[in-house]
Amino acid sequence: MSAPRTDISTLGEFGLIQHLTRNNEIRQASTLLTVGDDGAVIDHLGKQTVISSDMLIEGIHFDLSYTPLKHLGYKSVAVNVSDICAMNATPTHILLNIAVSNRFSVEALEEFYEGVYFACEKYNVDLIGGDTTSSPKGFNISVTAIGEVLEGRYVTRKGARPNDLICVTGDLGAAFMGLTLLEREKKIFLEHPDVQPDLDNRTHCIGKILKPEARLDIIEWLEEKGIAPTSMIDISDGLSSELFHICTQSEVGCEIFEDKIPFHEEMREVAFQFEIDPTACALSGGEDYELLFTVPQEAYEHIKFSEQISVVGYITDQPGQLHITTRKGNKHPLEAQGWQAFKK
Amino acid sequence: MSAPRTDISTLGEFGLIQHLTRNNEIRQASTLLTVGDDGAVIDHLGKQTVISSDMLIEGIHFDLSYTPLKHLGYKSVAVNVSDICAMNATPTHILLNIAVSNRFSVEALEEFYEGVYFACEKYNVDLIGGDTTSSPKGFNISVTAIGEVLEGRYVTRKGARPNDLICVTGDLGAAFMGLTLLEREKKIFLEHPDVQPDLDNRTHCIGKILKPEARLDIIEWLEEKGIAPTSMIDISDGLSSELFHICTQSEVGCEIFEDKIPFHEEMREVAFQFEIDPTACALSGGEDYELLFTVPQEAYEHIKFSEQISVVGYITDQPGQLHITTRKGNKHPLEAQGWQAFKK
Repeated sequence: MSAPRTDISTLGEFGLIQHLTRNNEIRQASTLLTVGDDGAVIDHLGKQTVISSDMLIEGIHFDLSYTPLKHLGYKSVAVNVSDICAMNATPTHILLNIAVSNRFSVEALEEFYEGVYFACEKYNVDLIGGDTTSSPKGFNISVTAIGEVLEGRYVTRKGARPNDLICVTGDLGAAFMGLTLLEREKKIFLEHPDVQPDLDNRTHCIGKILKPEARLDIIEWLEEKGIAPTSMIDISDGLSSELFHICTQSEVGCEIFEDKIPFHEEMREVAFQFEIDPTACALSGGEDYELLFTVPQEAYEHIKFSEQISVVGYITDQPGQLHITTRKGNKHPLEAQGWQAFKK
Repeated sequence: MSAPRTDISTLGEFGLIQHLTRNNEIRQASTLLTVGDDGAVIDHLGKQTVISSDMLIEGIHFDLSYTPLKHLGYKSVAVNVSDICAMNATPTHILLNIAVSNRFSVEALEEFYEGVYFACEKYNVDLIGGDTTSSPKGFNISVTAIGEVLEGRYVTRKGARPNDLICVTGDLGAAFMGLTLLEREKKIFLEHPDVQPDLDNRTHCIGKILKPEARLDIIEWLEEKGIAPTSMIDISDGLSSELFHICTQSEVGCEIFEDKIPFHEEMREVAFQFEIDPTACALSGGEDYELLFTVPQEAYEHIKFSEQISVVGYITDQPGQLHITTRKGNKHPLEAQGWQAFKK
């Protein structure tokens, strides 16, 4: 039995928006006006607004042959919420624009929105607007996330100071290994459509790439412990690239240690299987959406008790000098690889 | 001599963003942090924030064979600023996301950004962030516009009351005639590449489609005269469709008069030439980006002196009853055509 397929054209734009937002809930008291007008209205009470916007383009940022639409909806919200967290702000609202071709049915969009709403619930944000339109080809997503922060408490990439500790959350490199696994399964499937994928014991890596989480829990923990990071960024393009952003903007250098980079055991296994160096994945892999931040040394008394935060090195007063010390004790300059979508 | 062409890949993402935003100016005192971090930060001083987001997709919303990129940049900002105006708010900030294929050069993007900055200057808004990424095909734009309004002074589609006057700004239908002209010229060019287009005396219609303006001047005028519209919307999908939005959300009906709909003389000429009814263009044409709003009858003493505002009818207490009285005195029900991108 095939799933029902309702052509988008049967609803039209207004019908489609109404249909997709019919279960939209309001969680934030500051939401004065939501979806359904030319704009949304947000109230303020002496707080500052942080805002960020990002696109996810089919064929560049995701491959629908192995990305469930529900996960894609969740991820679209999570990666934007992650940017708000990376400013040390609390996410409050999102606007969602999608442009989709006629290849997608109403049911497909519903599935996508299910993921969106699931993420809104998880991060306690209100979906307050956006645009739904058609595209000649593919699924294009643009999300704007809004957050609030107490006056002057936002954290940029600019404030890292010599001797600050460099911290990362969670574990790194798993998203890249998840992507590598999925790309391999896709290739096998295209060549041998009868072979079933075996990804059962790879849930961590697959989960990191398909359904990443924003580290709002860390922002809340830092607030609770009274720790004010001196600089912060989310790790979307690999640790190395993000360290370059922080060091460049803060006009400092850094030393990190290979044996301090946090890895998940499953990620190590997959990396071993593919004969890829786990450290290279962490440095250049991307899409981890963990947080990278710097704190004064005094914060260590709290940080050391967190299982979610690893100290990977420290900031130096040598601008332009970014180094990693390997397990064998050799010191190498870091290279910024990062985002290469335009490069081939 | 051919224009220089720098491949986008030579700059990479960070280089590209830095390059494109190197002349970005700050105009709003509330801009605490702009492009270059995970998010932007906006300050507030007891005002409410209005926010809106819209996409422009190549092949759906614009055709680059006759749309100069500079105009496209201008229009991308203007149509989003228009949404903020339609809430009776003052635009303050925008975020711009673009996804472009390798077919576009750095020079092409510079041209686009020139238009963006020109519009930022015109509307006194700050470009504070966004995303620049690649797309497998085409030029996709997503703009988020932010505005501010005194507490509770925003105007929705919901407040129209029986006997309110229905007002429209500027003139209607010209954008659709401009589009019709450009589509014809494109067709002629494709069939006879040696024929030069003759659009010299069609600047109003062409200008309306390629470089529409947001009616911020009207918002300022209304404020100056102390007029608080009871409902407002911008005319992006044709007068008829927008009247349906206002009447449906306000639970009222309306009567409008064909002979009160404002037309530009040039638009009438072009419509005559194409044997299209000017009224049909105004009702269903779209892309005019004029404002449609309702005001209490007392406001007429001010409105009557504005050359930019036409009273086209009045609101009734008959929900679902939307009528137009023709020049000949016949009364017809209005039909909502509006946006049909998904319908064929």
